[in-house]
Amino acid sequence: MEINGVEIIDTYAEAFGIKVSRLLVTAATKELALTATTEATGYATSVIGCPAEAGIDVYLPPTETPDGRPGYVIMICQGSKKKLSHELLERIGMGILTAPTTAVFNALENPDELLNEGFKLKFFGDGYEKELEIAGRKVHSIPIMSGEFLVESEFGIKDGVAGGNFFVGGDSKMSALIGAQAAVDAISNVPGTITPFPGGVVASGSKVGCNSYTFLNASTNEKMCVGLKNEIEGSEISAAVNGIYEIVIDGVDETSVKKAMYEGIKAATSVPGVIEINAGNFGGNLGAYKINLKDLF
Amino acid sequence: MEINGVEIIDTYAEAFGIKVSRLLVTAATKELALTATTEATGYATSVIGCPAEAGIDVYLPPTETPDGRPGYVIMICQGSKKKLSHELLERIGMGILTAPTTAVFNALENPDELLNEGFKLKFFGDGYEKELEIAGRKVHSIPIMSGEFLVESEFGIKDGVAGGNFFVGGDSKMSALIGAQAAVDAISNVPGTITPFPGGVVASGSKVGCNSYTFLNASTNEKMCVGLKNEIEGSEISAAVNGIYEIVIDGVDETSVKKAMYEGIKAATSVPGVIEINAGNFGGNLGAYKINLKDLF
Amino acid sequence: MEINGVEIIDTYAEAFGIKVSRLLVTAATKELALTATTEATGYATSVIGCPAEAGIDVYLPPTETPDGRPGYVIMICQGSKKKLSHELLERIGMGILTAPTTAVFNALENPDELLNEGFKLKFFGDGYEKELEIAGRKVHSIPIMSGEFLVESEFGIKDGVAGGNFFVGGDSKMSALIGAQAAVDAISNVPGTITPFPGGVVASGSKVGCNSYTFLNASTNEKMCVGLKNEIEGSEISAAVNGIYEIVIDGVDETSVKKAMYEGIKAATSVPGVIEINAGNFGGNLGAYKINLKDLF
Amino acid sequence: MEINGVEIIDTYAEAFGIKVSRLLVTAATKELALTATTEATGYATSVIGCPAEAGIDVYLPPTETPDGRPGYVIMICQGSKKKLSHELLERIGMGILTAPTTAVFNALENPDELLNEGFKLKFFGDGYEKELEIAGRKVHSIPIMSGEFLVESEFGIKDGVAGGNFFVGGDSKMSALIGAQAAVDAISNVPGTITPFPGGVVASGSKVGCNSYTFLNASTNEKMCVGLKNEIEGSEISAAVNGIYEIVIDGVDETSVKKAMYEGIKAATSVPGVIEINAGNFGGNLGAYKINLKDLF
Repeated sequence: MEINGVEIIDTYAEAFGIKVSRLLVTAATKELALTATTEATGYATSVIGCPAEAGIDVYLPPTETPDGRPGYVIMICQGSKKKLSHELLERIGMGILTAPTTAVFNALENPDELLNEGFKLKFFGDGYEKELEIAGRKVHSIPIMSGEFLVESEFGIKDGVAGGNFFVGGDSKMSALIGAQAAVDAISNVPGTITPFPGGVVASGSKVGCNSYTFLNASTNEKMCVGLKNEIEGSEISAAVNGIYEIVIDGVDETSVKKAMYEGIKAATSVPGVIEINAGNFGGNLGAYKINLKDLF
Repeated sequence: MEINGVEIIDTYAEAFGIKVSRLLVTAATKELALTATTEATGYATSVIGCPAEAGIDVYLPPTETPDGRPGYVIMICQGSKKKLSHELLERIGMGILTAPTTAVFNALENPDELLNEGFKLKFFGDGYEKELEIAGRKVHSIPIMSGEFLVESEFGIKDGVAGGNFFVGGDSKMSALIGAQAAVDAISNVPGTITPFPGGVVASGSKVGCNSYTFLNASTNEKMCVGLKNEIEGSEISAAVNGIYEIVIDGVDETSVKKAMYEGIKAATSVPGVIEINAGNFGGNLGAYKINLKDLF
Repeated sequence: MEINGVEIIDTYAEAFGIKVSRLLVTAATKELALTATTEATGYATSVIGCPAEAGIDVYLPPTETPDGRPGYVIMICQGSKKKLSHELLERIGMGILTAPTTAVFNALENPDELLNEGFKLKFFGDGYEKELEIAGRKVHSIPIMSGEFLVESEFGIKDGVAGGNFFVGGDSKMSALIGAQAAVDAISNVPGTITPFPGGVVASGSKVGCNSYTFLNASTNEKMCVGLKNEIEGSEISAAVNGIYEIVIDGVDETSVKKAMYEGIKAATSVPGVIEINAGNFGGNLGAYKINLKDLF
Repeated sequence: MEINGVEIIDTYAEAFGIKVSRLLVTAATKELALTATTEATGYATSVIGCPAEAGIDVYLPPTETPDGRPGYVIMICQGSKKKLSHELLERIGMGILTAPTTAVFNALENPDELLNEGFKLKFFGDGYEKELEIAGRKVHSIPIMSGEFLVESEFGIKDGVAGGNFFVGGDSKMSALIGAQAAVDAISNVPGTITPFPGGVVASGSKVGCNSYTFLNASTNEKMCVGLKNEIEGSEISAAVNGIYEIVIDGVDETSVKKAMYEGIKAATSVPGVIEINAGNFGGNLGAYKINLKDLF
């Protein structure tokens, strides 16, 4: 199958269940909202080694937020509810409460359940905190040195999808890189999804386990390493492909992840030198979701 | 004492010991180096609730790096050596190795000791890794999907200083905010220091302990909250001050932190509406360092 | 009248007729589209001294553009049709054709007439240019060193509105500045409008003519200068106002400009320390449009 | 000749004389200084169609500026002294005076002569302007709505060099593009030089004259167009090169331009897929300077 003249390999992305939260962070200006959300979603590419997976979902202009200020929606994801609760508390408390002029609202529709991290944060107010209602939401106003911090009392969580993915194959490394960046640009407008890796792009797709060092649970995917293409037996890289970058997507549900994959792949194929789209899976036995690339189109 | 007509309160900042590492992350372009270091230094404002304190130190042009590419120097800090070792491994492995085109070099001079996190990361190569020498440094080349990742074998750590600080007091909230941003701009050119909070600015300076809720170790510093100035007894905010933002600085040594405080305070005083510089301390019994504001000038 | 507790002065903005064009510039990535449009809309704050008034209108994701790539809509405005024709030709030819991976499409609905600047640009192809149809549009493909440049053959122009404006008054200079920035953030999501001054903000609102130097057509508006408030007679600045920044808006029609003023003013009033909204006029005899602030709400 | 394994073609860049000015623009924050200088240096890629050539030269931290604030040095260039005088007046008056919190100082050492554009701008103050001395410089303080604008009285100009250049050839379009971006990053740290095209990169290198349409003075350089490589006779593109972007450099003197070319070429060769460096000339009869690529190394 071809899209824009780019070969779509007949394979599937294998994705996993994860618990997701979705927050709206508003601030006095768009730039200040970006500063806070960048801090709060850092160090969060993969739960393999990071305490969470997190990223910026979409920007909302003042007309679409409860307090009429510009804001970014972010997602914070974790495999366990207990760890997600911890991450929510600390990423809000250390990364957003500490940032100039911010407020935080729940932005997850149809949650499976609610976590009361806003309620927990109010104690930072040492008795000077107050309870407000903003646009029908229960919000805690916590006095801080620079003014007040507003945080909704409860945040929804739900079972979402992690590890939706595709590989952008290029005729050179930099073709694949800009193709991947174009994909991230497109996905950034798909609500309910994030691309948690640095700048949305993964440079180092891995395989499960490790052949040479048995103490490792994950290691480089040598059969997809462009630098080893001609050095090892069994390389799975197409003859014309000299560059590969991966996009990994987390979403609130499978539909959102599929939409992000669709938009991302279409965008990648518009970049000169992108010649093939592939996807990563682990034989189909590890993840709860199999997303066939061909079914997206 | 006055600097540029701004009152410098006769007080001191109380700072603490912390273990610091300092890394140089290079990439194909300045933008790609920024993407990687932003991810790797996120979720790292204060060890009160974050797994580390981290931030971008200085930018180095291609002429000043071992591989002739643009790069950002970052600092990662933790109270314990064991936790710092963990943070180095994961922040490099999950935030930089995963980012397009990066390489990582040690950037700490005169270390107390060396941690072999680069050596540990090489196992990700599953036997395909190689050892190189670049500018006299021992470097591991790890094949990754997009090419190769270069990481120096050992990273120095040393006893540094955390929590250097000052408060920017303004005639309004936004005067204090832009004053604080000007301070961060100035400090960003002082090598060996970072301002780990979001955008370098702290909106919510805290006190030790909590009066109303004894289960909390830290809570809002109500005597310095501008919103409570006229509502509580014992507010310590000057009559004319209506806005306060704090700058917190971590550095490789006390000299660097003092230099950053000096440059930051001078810059803050150049902003219209900044009227007072203060500092935070805890009675002098908690921290190893007392830095008098007046001694800076 | 008060909005969010901020006084709206009972006055009007006096605006003028201007000829406007509206273009969509797409590129391989959002960043590359921003690079091109930033160059093409520079040196374009006011036709008092610049060859045009120009700015970025809105961002369009790949799903909303003719070629499925991310793009920014820009507006270029001039008082005369002849000069607008020249500015379109040069700003596209020198600022967008020269930028990596770009294409340009007409984005003005219901034009009064069409200018064939795309047709004129095709001659740069020296006979190697081709004609294409993209999404029903007639487009010239011009071979350039790096690939090909696509430009729609004709661009619509129409009679629009220049100089829609309001003043953000703050309790300090920096309150007014961040209030103005918040206004610009809000206006950036109102299609059909731009804020052509640097970062969207005017630091130096002027008056018509000059009292001391008769050779000048425009000079500082001393009665609204915060630094002269207590030095001159007849200052028109309210007692509590210590900072003023102006927002100037150009739009495709009066409705768009009013919508931008409404959203901008609302946003400005959400910033701490913003205490008054005013507007600029010239007695009502110069401009074709009078927009009462109170009628916006 | 090879640098980092990349072929340096045995050719020369042909450059021209131009009159250059060099200004330092400071502001309350680095971001505000960038906003002003971006506006003032826009629409200025080439005097072929723009009213000037302009760009940001280097960033100066607060410790290196006359007023202790962060600032960007910019260069504004024109073929004629009269036009340069006009461009200085309007780009400062419309793009910097109008921007929040700015001041402008002369930053050209060893000028051939001085233009009194600061003196001319003071009349905007309508008699309320004052004269100051800052760091030994004669400066006009002009009251504006938001405060005061400071501008040095005189700005130096000198005979500089325009059109220093090189071509980055890649195995694909995107390799050449990122190679060119790496070059721009490196040149941005060479004082006394700018890369005036969008983002510093030229997508559309041209030739003098036009074969098919004699009314044009410049047209596409078809022999260097990658898209025509296999369609026309006489293509001058090497067999392996599939992508070409050009870097154009203006500088205060030939030494600076050579230094920028050297640093830029070295940086480009560090990007994967960059395989050849070439340069543009016109037979050697048009420009006053011939810079051999091989002599740079």
